[in-house]
Amino acid sequence: MENFVITIARQYGSGGRTVGKMLAEKLGVSFYDKQIIQMASDESGIDVKLFGQVEEGSSVKASLFNKTGLYKGDLIAPDQKGFVSDENIFNYQAKIATDLAEKESCVIVGRCVNYVFKDRPNTLRVFIHAPWEFRVEKSREKISGSDEEIEKFLRRDDKRKQDYYRKFAGGDWSDATNYDLCLNAGKLGFEKCVDAILAQMNVMGIK
Amino acid sequence: MENFVITIARQYGSGGRTVGKMLAEKLGVSFYDKQIIQMASDESGIDVKLFGQVEEGSSVKASLFNKTGLYKGDLIAPDQKGFVSDENIFNYQAKIATDLAEKESCVIVGRCVNYVFKDRPNTLRVFIHAPWEFRVEKSREKISGSDEEIEKFLRRDDKRKQDYYRKFAGGDWSDATNYDLCLNAGKLGFEKCVDAILAQMNVMGIK
Repeated sequence: MENFVITIARQYGSGGRTVGKMLAEKLGVSFYDKQIIQMASDESGIDVKLFGQVEEGSSVKASLFNKTGLYKGDLIAPDQKGFVSDENIFNYQAKIATDLAEKESCVIVGRCVNYVFKDRPNTLRVFIHAPWEFRVEKSREKISGSDEEIEKFLRRDDKRKQDYYRKFAGGDWSDATNYDLCLNAGKLGFEKCVDAILAQMNVMGIK
Repeated sequence: MENFVITIARQYGSGGRTVGKMLAEKLGVSFYDKQIIQMASDESGIDVKLFGQVEEGSSVKASLFNKTGLYKGDLIAPDQKGFVSDENIFNYQAKIATDLAEKESCVIVGRCVNYVFKDRPNTLRVFIHAPWEFRVEKSREKISGSDEEIEKFLRRDDKRKQDYYRKFAGGDWSDATNYDLCLNAGKLGFEKCVDAILAQMNVMGIK
């Protein structure tokens, strides 16, 4: 059987990243998050700053309604037009995720991997969310500033993820139909989110 | 502890209703779906046809962007203005669901009960979806017509549910953040959806 992959998309402040780490530890597999960007930069030779820019959405908005950006998986060679395009930068990240999954079972957070792996067997695609107040509270641990500033940050981050998802994967980032399992971490707590994912892996026969 | 309630929202053709029935049978509790409409009609004295019209969205669209329709739970008396309004018809359905939950543990399908019960303890709110092809295939068992006609029906039903949800509950009907658990019935199959819900009840301590 193929290596298993748990993909986790999460709202900022929901604790989804923490859940992913706890899950990986419990399963004894690797956990991948932002380091995929560095790996994709290293492999492609494209400056890591450009990855950051795509992520930050500076150029996502410009072509938001341009459906040609939807991920198809084909890489553009360094000597071809579009090598440093948003699309190719996304494609390189997707390639790194795909290569990792070929080598080992793992937990991967973010980067629209739920879309990249939508037809992959032995894959469980999770979305983790939490109530607004919970997210604000949790964000205080990481962001300094007034509640108003934190709330502004959260709204901006939701919008950024939504734009990013719409551009590369189509549809809505928080739409349940893009996932196999969606959990409310605010209601469940992190430990039980891990339990819920393990239970779902068991139900789906993922191992 | 309060009676437990499992609310199920589902895409037409996802098999969510079947899953709800199987779940109720396995748990040995009542299953409520459309009969809530008749019960609300009986209790209020409002013609059952008016309930159907609200559901069909004939008048939902007109005030789609009117936020005053969001469910708050207050009933309007027969001698007051708005007694047969869409809002009051929704409120009566919500009241029936609330009364049922006071009397017994149960599974309730549809009617935005996930929103009505959003703060209710001992409640698990499930959204069941399935891939488009699966839904078309499943719908053939219930609807006669060409694939094109079935697809048209499905698009219309999704739109209807989306409009209905937006009007009475706000936000998007298929948005994961409105639920505690979202499952892909096409990938899992119905039996495993039931298993997944039972597993989640266990994780959440719902009983």
